[in-house]
Amino acid sequence: MRIVVALGGNALLRRGQALTAENQRENVQIASRALAPLAEAHELVVTHGNGPQVGLLALQEAAYTEVDEYPLDVLVGETMGMIGYMIEQEMGNLLAPDKPLATVLTMVEVDPNDPAFDDPTKFIGPVYSEDVARKNAEEKGWSIKPDGDKWRRVVPSPAPKRIFQIRPIRWLLENGSVVIAAGGGGIPTMYDRAGHLTGVECVIDKDNCSSMLATEIDADVFVVATDVEAVFLDWGAPEQKAIRKASPDMMDAFDFPGGSMGPKVGAAQDFARATGNKAIICSLKDIEAAIRGEAGTTISTSVAELELVPS
Amino acid sequence: MRIVVALGGNALLRRGQALTAENQRENVQIASRALAPLAEAHELVVTHGNGPQVGLLALQEAAYTEVDEYPLDVLVGETMGMIGYMIEQEMGNLLAPDKPLATVLTMVEVDPNDPAFDDPTKFIGPVYSEDVARKNAEEKGWSIKPDGDKWRRVVPSPAPKRIFQIRPIRWLLENGSVVIAAGGGGIPTMYDRAGHLTGVECVIDKDNCSSMLATEIDADVFVVATDVEAVFLDWGAPEQKAIRKASPDMMDAFDFPGGSMGPKVGAAQDFARATGNKAIICSLKDIEAAIRGEAGTTISTSVAELELVPS
Repeated sequence: MRIVVALGGNALLRRGQALTAENQRENVQIASRALAPLAEAHELVVTHGNGPQVGLLALQEAAYTEVDEYPLDVLVGETMGMIGYMIEQEMGNLLAPDKPLATVLTMVEVDPNDPAFDDPTKFIGPVYSEDVARKNAEEKGWSIKPDGDKWRRVVPSPAPKRIFQIRPIRWLLENGSVVIAAGGGGIPTMYDRAGHLTGVECVIDKDNCSSMLATEIDADVFVVATDVEAVFLDWGAPEQKAIRKASPDMMDAFDFPGGSMGPKVGAAQDFARATGNKAIICSLKDIEAAIRGEAGTTISTSVAELELVPS
Repeated sequence: MRIVVALGGNALLRRGQALTAENQRENVQIASRALAPLAEAHELVVTHGNGPQVGLLALQEAAYTEVDEYPLDVLVGETMGMIGYMIEQEMGNLLAPDKPLATVLTMVEVDPNDPAFDDPTKFIGPVYSEDVARKNAEEKGWSIKPDGDKWRRVVPSPAPKRIFQIRPIRWLLENGSVVIAAGGGGIPTMYDRAGHLTGVECVIDKDNCSSMLATEIDADVFVVATDVEAVFLDWGAPEQKAIRKASPDMMDAFDFPGGSMGPKVGAAQDFARATGNKAIICSLKDIEAAIRGEAGTTISTSVAELELVPS
């Protein structure tokens, strides 16, 4: 089987943890233990988020004023090197010494006419007081929005249109290599009027990009690994139930929070519809059971009846 | 032909330039124009330095004190993402739209018993007054050495022992992809006593690593692209002469400066001796002419007589 696993942000950094190299490495080790059995038995692509890491790089840049800050596309490239390295090294430590692994820098084309550019919505970096946020907005051309009682920078989050490295990723998989790719949703790029590909100040949703990657490399399974065990109905209420199996159309009947579960469900639906194969949303530790249908939420066009599990 | 081109630091940043994203991109565009014809006609791997970029990341980290600084291996990974992205994008802009390119994160094993660890020699990062340097040495465990009338951090520069991504790089080349790899000499790693691969606080010479890469992928030509037109005898004197052709053994008869031309010549000799193929040291703009033997310095075991060109 060919499997794409999208690692959620918590696989790299748990809530409340300081963003040190040591903490990241410890979490990557935990994630690698969950992924290693998949790498041994299947073709595996690992994708990952990069939100806190991009935020940290931006803060470090802002703190050192001798050189102008680099644009977001370059920072995303940096985080792919940083995180890809840790994942590749720690997975390599768990696999047979001759198992090849490769981290492939991933660039993604977005459409300059994507409506997302008219309405930046994606929070990025730290929170500021309104004053500081407004000052940054003026000086750096940021869009800003309130986040609770604080303010943050927002950037557009357009849809991925094309992933440039699909063929290299396929070739590596065909030769038996574990591939780490599409970190942080990929480096956002677009063609300018002269036909040159350039970077763009935006971020691409990691699950959305991973879903497109899984579709384009003809993955048999697309797994969104997160910190909850499944997609729940009535989440947090006494009557909450986990969705064990659903078709993409059945999932349309429910509302999920836009900032967290919504994009994951959407990405899973897209993959299931485009390929006829199954998408899974589950916790990292349950991936193998979820692939067997015994844990997590499986979304597939072949599901005839909604299956719920009381929790 | 299969060609490896090692881009010198000046291909990314000319002396005296500020390390802005714009300056780097402009230089990468110039380098890409020199490399594109090679990518069209041959199998091509591009490697590159990262000295100023690692230095900048270290300064940015030091300026933001909320999170502990990351170790050097992680920073090298970051620079591979940053620089690899720029090279891949700008080369892609000059090549046919369907030409595949891939940047492969490269990890390199070094030997914990390498004598370089007993004598750190490689300057890294900015210059400091002696006071500040000594304070940093104490607080951060740095080794420091005088550089002119200032002081700098020094790290060991051990020999590369193994490049982990040789097979992925080969597979990509065999499928027609331009490959960008071994940035900054690769991420330095070693096996600890428990047999786990971990990062190391050192840097690997970029030309040395590139030479090993070229040897291990059976390159036909290894090019060290730099900012001088050739290797010169009596450099700077009225009687200076460019070496057009020499065998590796003939090169042993001459002394070249340890900090600049010496490592390049050594890397070229290593490749020529290991493979019987030709190594070239030349300026970026002359690569095509140098491959034809009409510019630069060619080092090959098949050269029977030293060929000099008065300048």
